[in-house]
Amino acid sequence: MWSKEQILQHLKENLKESRYNHTLGVVDMAKRLADINGVDQERAELAALIHDCAKNLHIDELFKILQDNSIEVDEIERISPQLLHGKVGAVLGEKLMNISDKEILSAVKYHTTGKANMSTLEKIIYIADYIEPNRNFDGVDKLREITIENLDRGVLGGIDNTLVYIIKNGGLIHPNTVEARNYLINTLKEVNK
Amino acid sequence: MWSKEQILQHLKENLKESRYNHTLGVVDMAKRLADINGVDQERAELAALIHDCAKNLHIDELFKILQDNSIEVDEIERISPQLLHGKVGAVLGEKLMNISDKEILSAVKYHTTGKANMSTLEKIIYIADYIEPNRNFDGVDKLREITIENLDRGVLGGIDNTLVYIIKNGGLIHPNTVEARNYLINTLKEVNK
Repeated sequence: MWSKEQILQHLKENLKESRYNHTLGVVDMAKRLADINGVDQERAELAALIHDCAKNLHIDELFKILQDNSIEVDEIERISPQLLHGKVGAVLGEKLMNISDKEILSAVKYHTTGKANMSTLEKIIYIADYIEPNRNFDGVDKLREITIENLDRGVLGGIDNTLVYIIKNGGLIHPNTVEARNYLINTLKEVNK
Repeated sequence: MWSKEQILQHLKENLKESRYNHTLGVVDMAKRLADINGVDQERAELAALIHDCAKNLHIDELFKILQDNSIEVDEIERISPQLLHGKVGAVLGEKLMNISDKEILSAVKYHTTGKANMSTLEKIIYIADYIEPNRNFDGVDKLREITIENLDRGVLGGIDNTLVYIIKNGGLIHPNTVEARNYLINTLKEVNK
């Protein structure tokens, strides 16, 4: 498996500077959330480090890597290929960097859309990506507070913001995102019963 | 098949007054949209008349009618049973009122959630329900204008409003609604190419 130094070197060579800095912010936030939620910080750090490793690849490369690895591209991803960098990042993590931890790879794979029944690590990467220290949007401070207090509520808030943004901008909604949201709402209802 | 008079009598006996008046508003709007979009006005009227015929049934009755007719209830409908009145309305239309027009029954079935690849009649009932003359919400006049100009854009606007409302209120989103929206966006993109 690649060392942290090898991964950082790869990111420096393959990401734009702003994207590299964003990654370090996600590492920061993910480690903090891991600590709060009883997840191993090194696993959270590794997932955060590689979550956007495919972000600056050309669309043709994204499709080629998935095709070479017999990974399906769904209809929404075909029309909105910016969604594919999570899937490709997981492939690069496994095949290039020799990371075998399935939960880390899954957290990378689903960090943009989310999915139903996410693991704690998957939730951490999803929301750390959204609220890392470099992020700056109306309500981000409040969402950080909520997330630190209750991870599920934070992830739900991140999904809600994302959906409203997509709707206002006429984008396509991935079914995984809606399934993630419905699952979280039901989980939170159960907890509060 | 039941006559219009028989249906109106049934609605008077089974709907609250406000719901009955809403139904007449949907009939009005649906006939207007049918005329604009080349759909037979009598079919639009019939679908509009019965679209909410199951709306004031007790939840237990909704579940019983679907069970008696071997119609599946999905996970979201089980948790949000107010979604079931469309499915039950279609059953009552077919079994009680002897309506055999499958497209009319489908328009009733999907009038709350929408679905991918709706027929023109299905779109008309979906949006007429949302913008009929008794409806009063911010932006309803604009949405009526849009709908009269372009049915697809109107339905998309109705879905977008509905999704934002559900998100703000912490409700569950039915996957059919997201599929309806994604399908419409892709259709509108194709048209504008």
